[in-house]
Amino acid sequence: MKVSELGEFGLIDLLAKMAYGARDKRVSAWQQLILGIGDDAAAWYGDDSIQLATVDCLIQDVHFTLEITSWEELGWRALAVNLSDIAAMGGFAKYALVSLALPGQTEVEAIVALYQGMLALARRFEVAIVGGNMSQAPLLVINITVLGSTKGRDKNILTRSAAKPGEQVAVTGYLGAAAAGLAVLRQHLPLESKAAASLKQAFLQPYPRVAEGQVLVEHGVRAAIDISDGLISDLSHLCKASQVGARIEIDRLPVPPAVRANFGDRALELALSGGDDYELLFTASAEVIDRVKAAASCPITVIGEIMPDKAGEITLIDGKGNPVNLPKAGWEHFTAKRS
Amino acid sequence: MKVSELGEFGLIDLLAKMAYGARDKRVSAWQQLILGIGDDAAAWYGDDSIQLATVDCLIQDVHFTLEITSWEELGWRALAVNLSDIAAMGGFAKYALVSLALPGQTEVEAIVALYQGMLALARRFEVAIVGGNMSQAPLLVINITVLGSTKGRDKNILTRSAAKPGEQVAVTGYLGAAAAGLAVLRQHLPLESKAAASLKQAFLQPYPRVAEGQVLVEHGVRAAIDISDGLISDLSHLCKASQVGARIEIDRLPVPPAVRANFGDRALELALSGGDDYELLFTASAEVIDRVKAAASCPITVIGEIMPDKAGEITLIDGKGNPVNLPKAGWEHFTAKRS
Repeated sequence: MKVSELGEFGLIDLLAKMAYGARDKRVSAWQQLILGIGDDAAAWYGDDSIQLATVDCLIQDVHFTLEITSWEELGWRALAVNLSDIAAMGGFAKYALVSLALPGQTEVEAIVALYQGMLALARRFEVAIVGGNMSQAPLLVINITVLGSTKGRDKNILTRSAAKPGEQVAVTGYLGAAAAGLAVLRQHLPLESKAAASLKQAFLQPYPRVAEGQVLVEHGVRAAIDISDGLISDLSHLCKASQVGARIEIDRLPVPPAVRANFGDRALELALSGGDDYELLFTASAEVIDRVKAAASCPITVIGEIMPDKAGEITLIDGKGNPVNLPKAGWEHFTAKRS
Repeated sequence: MKVSELGEFGLIDLLAKMAYGARDKRVSAWQQLILGIGDDAAAWYGDDSIQLATVDCLIQDVHFTLEITSWEELGWRALAVNLSDIAAMGGFAKYALVSLALPGQTEVEAIVALYQGMLALARRFEVAIVGGNMSQAPLLVINITVLGSTKGRDKNILTRSAAKPGEQVAVTGYLGAAAAGLAVLRQHLPLESKAAASLKQAFLQPYPRVAEGQVLVEHGVRAAIDISDGLISDLSHLCKASQVGARIEIDRLPVPPAVRANFGDRALELALSGGDDYELLFTASAEVIDRVKAAASCPITVIGEIMPDKAGEITLIDGKGNPVNLPKAGWEHFTAKRS
């Protein structure tokens, strides 16, 4: 069978099973492990805190094209997508390893700019870049590993598997801005310049919700995921891991005014499955969410509810409670469609 | 300037300076850091031990070709090169994150075999594969991050910068076998089958010297590096980091009989700059090396001496003390030559 037939998530499931099949309870690595393959980051007990590790890979002409991204923006974005995974665990990031593969014909100044972009973000989030690897390759591949932790060993972490029926589903910030920004960049849409700039920035320089992730943990949230593939796709991952379903009220989605104004009917689709928002999607009781709203420094919007449905089943309803057709899911590697 | 003009190590130096330029002593990540970019692995103080992290990347048709490597061997090798970096710090490996980029047309069975190879090695070294990433790409890219530690916070680690004039230079195991194995695989050389098999295995399935690295630390060795690019190249890295030179007696190099017998005059070159041996190169007093010899389960061979010469200067001498011409250095990415 081809990888394209099994799909990205099918392949991950298969390899996760193999990795767990090799589990050996006499080995300290396995004894201390909290979460392996299948969440936003791996987690294990350190001596005095929970350790977190995540890796992401950006590949030229798959995840980015240099025609619409500057090297500095690319560096920022490459690190940001990793910090977002740490944010989705309720941890903070600490160290990064940067593995670059690139053609010899690349300009050194370009790689310096790439690093400047990474370092600008690293500085804001108090992350030290402490290692990496350098290889020759026919195209640019940026692989970044980020190591983080919680502030104490007894801290909770946010997992994909902790959502419970009856909990509310909420998101930080706005949905659809990054996908709208990508459309603006690709199609040179004639938007008012301020709107265009803010949408482009949402795509090119996502701001990982690390502080918000810690607010979630501190106020009692237990289930979260970051929105990289798209709301529906990532909510579906969370629901599958938690063995629940979810109902989303489309009128409650926090779609930014610039997206509503310029994308008409497509605005909803961008918010539901555009992806690249790097907002946090989480579930909790109404009471916990009220506390999170009071403490968070960004908008928190309740968009639906966790249901005792079939695992991973997402239903959409309008303001009157009537079902709405579900657009196809978000980004999946190998199946070669972003629907 | 093009990356190919600056070269791999020039680019790494430049980026290391940028990363250190961003150092902020108020930030805990920097306060706890022991070693950043430029050694075999990054190292920092954990609560109760020293934490180690390393990443390596294997790229199709740059680091491997599927014509001479099975998928299972490739998986073993990809993880082994990382464990070797942890070994060169005197630590032990614990967790691995595997980031795969591959074409959708790849057979799922191939990736399963790749994982089987990794898991076979992981099991032997008590490493748990706990995370990773999966992407589509036009060619296969395997990026593995390994996290390890020392057994206690007060343990020493092996660094590239601790070699001192007057110390002996020694290596574990044999040199040149892997490069000879690669030649056998590529050129289908008509070797006696047992010799061919052992050389091929040296290249395809290197056995990382994790146990030996710990023996070194426990017996007082402070300076080490693993031999991935070739003896001269890696010794030169160690000498530059330590601000010393070295003198190597070529007659003392532990070249395996199968290499001597089948490669004639090329045997020396394979041992000096063939690379891919994944043995440990270290320096210490004669007394310490005697203790290491008694404790190690593999051959330990003294091959020369650290000199108070220009940083990174390597001289070769024969059995009578006469200078021998130095072959060009080992593998460097971007300059596109393996000399």
